[in-house]
Amino acid sequence: MKIINLDSDYKKDYYSDFASWLQDDLNAVNKIILDSLSNSSKLISDLSSHIISSGGKRIRPLLTLASAKLCGYSGSRHINLASVIEFIHTATLLHDDVVDNSKKRRGKDTANYIWGNKSSILVGDFLLSKAFKLLTKDGSLKCIEIISKTSEKISLGEVKQLMSVKNLETSESDYLEIIDFKTAELFSAACQISCEISEIEDKKKKSLREFGKFLGIAFQIIDDTIDYFSSEENSGKEIGNDFKEGKMSLPLILSYKRSDRRERTYLEYILKKGRIINDDFLWAQQLMKKYNIEEDCMSKAKHFSIMAKDSLGTFQNSFEKEKILNLTDFLMFRKS
Amino acid sequence: MKIINLDSDYKKDYYSDFASWLQDDLNAVNKIILDSLSNSSKLISDLSSHIISSGGKRIRPLLTLASAKLCGYSGSRHINLASVIEFIHTATLLHDDVVDNSKKRRGKDTANYIWGNKSSILVGDFLLSKAFKLLTKDGSLKCIEIISKTSEKISLGEVKQLMSVKNLETSESDYLEIIDFKTAELFSAACQISCEISEIEDKKKKSLREFGKFLGIAFQIIDDTIDYFSSEENSGKEIGNDFKEGKMSLPLILSYKRSDRRERTYLEYILKKGRIINDDFLWAQQLMKKYNIEEDCMSKAKHFSIMAKDSLGTFQNSFEKEKILNLTDFLMFRKS
Repeated sequence: MKIINLDSDYKKDYYSDFASWLQDDLNAVNKIILDSLSNSSKLISDLSSHIISSGGKRIRPLLTLASAKLCGYSGSRHINLASVIEFIHTATLLHDDVVDNSKKRRGKDTANYIWGNKSSILVGDFLLSKAFKLLTKDGSLKCIEIISKTSEKISLGEVKQLMSVKNLETSESDYLEIIDFKTAELFSAACQISCEISEIEDKKKKSLREFGKFLGIAFQIIDDTIDYFSSEENSGKEIGNDFKEGKMSLPLILSYKRSDRRERTYLEYILKKGRIINDDFLWAQQLMKKYNIEEDCMSKAKHFSIMAKDSLGTFQNSFEKEKILNLTDFLMFRKS
Repeated sequence: MKIINLDSDYKKDYYSDFASWLQDDLNAVNKIILDSLSNSSKLISDLSSHIISSGGKRIRPLLTLASAKLCGYSGSRHINLASVIEFIHTATLLHDDVVDNSKKRRGKDTANYIWGNKSSILVGDFLLSKAFKLLTKDGSLKCIEIISKTSEKISLGEVKQLMSVKNLETSESDYLEIIDFKTAELFSAACQISCEISEIEDKKKKSLREFGKFLGIAFQIIDDTIDYFSSEENSGKEIGNDFKEGKMSLPLILSYKRSDRRERTYLEYILKKGRIINDDFLWAQQLMKKYNIEEDCMSKAKHFSIMAKDSLGTFQNSFEKEKILNLTDFLMFRKS
């Protein structure tokens, strides 16, 4: 007998609901993306289409589209800007997968696995440049400023993350800074650029900026938790990848802090010994079970998602606001 | 008895002369670069300083500075813009060295060799973002447009180059398109942005744009020729690297076209057999000697350098113009 998880299934509707609300705009975004790639080389369009069409949830460009609606924007610039956000995100994914040696993303082979690292590096560069070219076409210096700052922070966050690999001294606040830079900045920028093209007061701009930031932090904590506690079938990625790469994400940081002397020594040994194997990962999962890591990570994510929702307090209740709040809830219950 | 190469030594003075003419501005550029890096992480500043301070000739930012002088510009925006050009160039070098598996650049170990590919990828991304951030600070949409188009073309050129690896069907015009994109566009942009901040007529803007483009093509042909005919001592790089990577640069394209059936078959065999070794390279050098490849490549480079110089015909003779023409001559005689 199949037991239906009512709660999770209920939340799933929130996403379909959200995406269908914005479907027309999202189709327009997809068209811009495909058109922008069609004039480039075959490698660029094949590789980009592979990653862009691989069934991601398009959360970031959807945030741009939704923010524009929330701000009462009625023009069409948000379409172009949402494409910029997706390009920046895709460029980051391509380089990330090279840096992390990932073989799977969203249930499909990664671009670096299919086309090699060199292609992924160069196509990532192309997409980043394309993003700035599209931005220039839009012509808002303020939006260019937001995106260039964000792009700088993303790479700074990635560098900080790389420096912290296998460093068990990494603290929870080091981690929060890293995910703020590498993930939350782009969520925040996705919301901010829609404010810039709308005529809204500064305090509402600030609200949406903070909403994006807190949502991004919550999103990344869940992503990092999924990497220990989901199944590959659910997450579409290999799980245990973060652990095998020695990435100091929240579950590992908390586990180390809570471990006794013997467990700490063993964790140190695993991270130092070179190749981390599946048995090591199974051991780490057991350790995390003992210390209630999954639940605690999820409640930390929830803490930030509530901060995100409260950030929207400056906006009156509305149809648009409700959709965005529901999306936030959905993101807290996702399995992938 | 040491035989002094009068011609080459004479041209060398052109460069020192050029660099000392722009020394104050160049120092200001260096200061902006170092200041921009000092607030980032240690890895970013160590790695960037390694490559930026490794004794490159700074041709591209010098072109921005010199173009500003030629256009009679008297402000200080060219300093910031020259730094942007150097950042874009450095980001490209970092990713190039990963894609090409290079171990040496300018006589020093490459960043990817010292810090690993991951660091080079991420720091390259950081520098590219930093370039756009500096550009936004300058605030000229026209300059942002020039640089974003250039940055897109550079990565497109790199992708085209990657696709042509070991493809003996690559033609001389395919090659010219690749180097136009990956090299000449940035030379051209370096000149163009100084036009944009100066009050000069459109035909002069066009002149400088074309000057940069032709100079860039000449520069790259020489670079590719050096990789077959210089010594490591002179060039500061491992020579033979392009051949070992199967890169379809001009010397190889011409050699294949001029080879007889037996030589073609052998070249095809070398490129197909997997690892290309030093004996293969020595064989290729002999083949090139037979077909006069070095001289012919150099005269093709000279052809473009003359086009570059003639592009400046719209500018009256002046102290500044003379310096720029001399630099063009110097670049034709360089050994590294």
